[in-house]
Amino acid sequence: RSQLEPNVDEYCNKVLDRDRMFLSKAITLIESNAPRHERSAGELLQRLLPHTGNSIRIGITGVPGAGKSTFIEAFGLMLCELGHRVAVLAVDPSSAIRGGSILGDKTRMEQLSKHPNAFIRPSPSEGTLGGVHRKTRETILVCEAAGYDVILVETVGVGQSEGIVRGMVDFFMMLAITGAGDELQGMKKGIMELVDAIIVNKADGDNVELAKKTAREFKQMLHFVQSPTNGWTPRALPCSSLKGTGMEDVWEIIQQFAKETKSSGVFESRRKKQAKDWLYSLIDARLQKLFFEHAEIKKLLPKMEHQVMSEEITVKKACDQLFTVFNGK
Amino acid sequence: RSQLEPNVDEYCNKVLDRDRMFLSKAITLIESNAPRHERSAGELLQRLLPHTGNSIRIGITGVPGAGKSTFIEAFGLMLCELGHRVAVLAVDPSSAIRGGSILGDKTRMEQLSKHPNAFIRPSPSEGTLGGVHRKTRETILVCEAAGYDVILVETVGVGQSEGIVRGMVDFFMMLAITGAGDELQGMKKGIMELVDAIIVNKADGDNVELAKKTAREFKQMLHFVQSPTNGWTPRALPCSSLKGTGMEDVWEIIQQFAKETKSSGVFESRRKKQAKDWLYSLIDARLQKLFFEHAEIKKLLPKMEHQVMSEEITVKKACDQLFTVFNGK
Repeated sequence: RSQLEPNVDEYCNKVLDRDRMFLSKAITLIESNAPRHERSAGELLQRLLPHTGNSIRIGITGVPGAGKSTFIEAFGLMLCELGHRVAVLAVDPSSAIRGGSILGDKTRMEQLSKHPNAFIRPSPSEGTLGGVHRKTRETILVCEAAGYDVILVETVGVGQSEGIVRGMVDFFMMLAITGAGDELQGMKKGIMELVDAIIVNKADGDNVELAKKTAREFKQMLHFVQSPTNGWTPRALPCSSLKGTGMEDVWEIIQQFAKETKSSGVFESRRKKQAKDWLYSLIDARLQKLFFEHAEIKKLLPKMEHQVMSEEITVKKACDQLFTVFNGK
Repeated sequence: RSQLEPNVDEYCNKVLDRDRMFLSKAITLIESNAPRHERSAGELLQRLLPHTGNSIRIGITGVPGAGKSTFIEAFGLMLCELGHRVAVLAVDPSSAIRGGSILGDKTRMEQLSKHPNAFIRPSPSEGTLGGVHRKTRETILVCEAAGYDVILVETVGVGQSEGIVRGMVDFFMMLAITGAGDELQGMKKGIMELVDAIIVNKADGDNVELAKKTAREFKQMLHFVQSPTNGWTPRALPCSSLKGTGMEDVWEIIQQFAKETKSSGVFESRRKKQAKDWLYSLIDARLQKLFFEHAEIKKLLPKMEHQVMSEEITVKKACDQLFTVFNGK
């Protein structure tokens, strides 16, 4: 068989055997747009499905400059040293809308990337929104099947990307930094309602006290906001990726979160709801595709648009005509 | 013929003749869910379409207690006295989520409702979101065909209703009130980005100075927000519905807005875009209906949902199975 036609058996076995090279290749297969890969990718995922789910899925957002890469490096290394297997689905700085230099591309998370317990997968530039690839959900599942028990999903928070990542993780946190009283200015609207924790990074050197103060302020603000997770009060705490301080506290909170939400059933019901929402969003995307890529619709739609905009026909009538064509075959 | 099968000719002629009773009946026809009315309603709208569009469409939002009814009564009466014909598509207080007493239901806009130049249409409770009926767009068109040149669309701002109303009007304003420094507290997120003007109501008695100050504060805030209308700087000004002061200023601003946006082309291009967006949202609703009301899908979907939530099959595979059935016939 050709190299382009992957053997699902082989992929499946190698991924379950934790073969990193095959894990990478499996993700590439899943991300592929080629129709001939789609069937294999679907089959592979179905076969891996029973081996997925045994991880804590953690989303991380933060403005450029908040130090997400250095945080993930420090946090990830600590987890690896504790014996965890850590997969990082990271924003490729060269592809993110603003952020990172070409140099950064190479040196980013250098230590973590060399650790045998870590697997770093940058998002390809194509098809991403804030680092969230349209196949990130599938990638999480494959990493879980390959035995990674901590999944970190990074987003730079462009567009709706935080909401998308919130919809695929168990725990969502924002990395913040201190500033001249305006640390809240750069915050995106609605972000507070999404987070289970806010980590104030760069709590080092002269900045320690200010970082603590900022964390306290965030904590107060979080009081006024509806928590995204039933029964969980969002936390705010300082840390230093540079010094490595506060990393245990972050992990402690995440473990506490997992313990509490698992015992209350919130963890499981969120995952179920996420799977259901994913199904509905996939149905929606498929319906759109079916309609807007329909050959006759593609011909008729510009005409209908024009007639509606120039008030020649009512919107209802234009819609009727389109669906007569769509249902015609 | 039966009374239930309306004669489109008669409706059309009577509406164009500005017969208020037939206008009411025409709107009832359009709002009807009965399939036998749908065809007539569609035909009527198509026939009226060449006579629509000659109005300024104004959206009005504001928290309960901001005095929307008294404002619309005072503002509408002034316009009627100036010779305008004013249609008010109003929230029925008995149907709105929070607001209004049973008494209020009867006395609301009492004077305006008696004016020969005014037409008030409360939204029926069924099918509304914040007073926005799914047929409000069509109702605007019918009112225009009946010669109303000022259309006021009221919303209580529940859910996404402001965005929906913004998508069907030329000019959108928010009615605000003064308070103990916290007049901004009750404001919905994102509302500032939707408004062309903020009117601070109840600028009367002891409250005049505070209302002026509040208007200035809003004006400053509006500086930091992207205007919804190209080339237009959103205004903030005080008024008193009780005393009738400031009403001319509001109308002056709306006229200036219409003049400027018509000469720049923004007025026309917004209307075109709104018609196009309406078409796309109708297509979307129709697609959803086609899929989710499909007999086979209705049977299969709960099963697929369950299997996805219990991780028996991948979301992709569930979606594939659903579409195999959907495309099967």
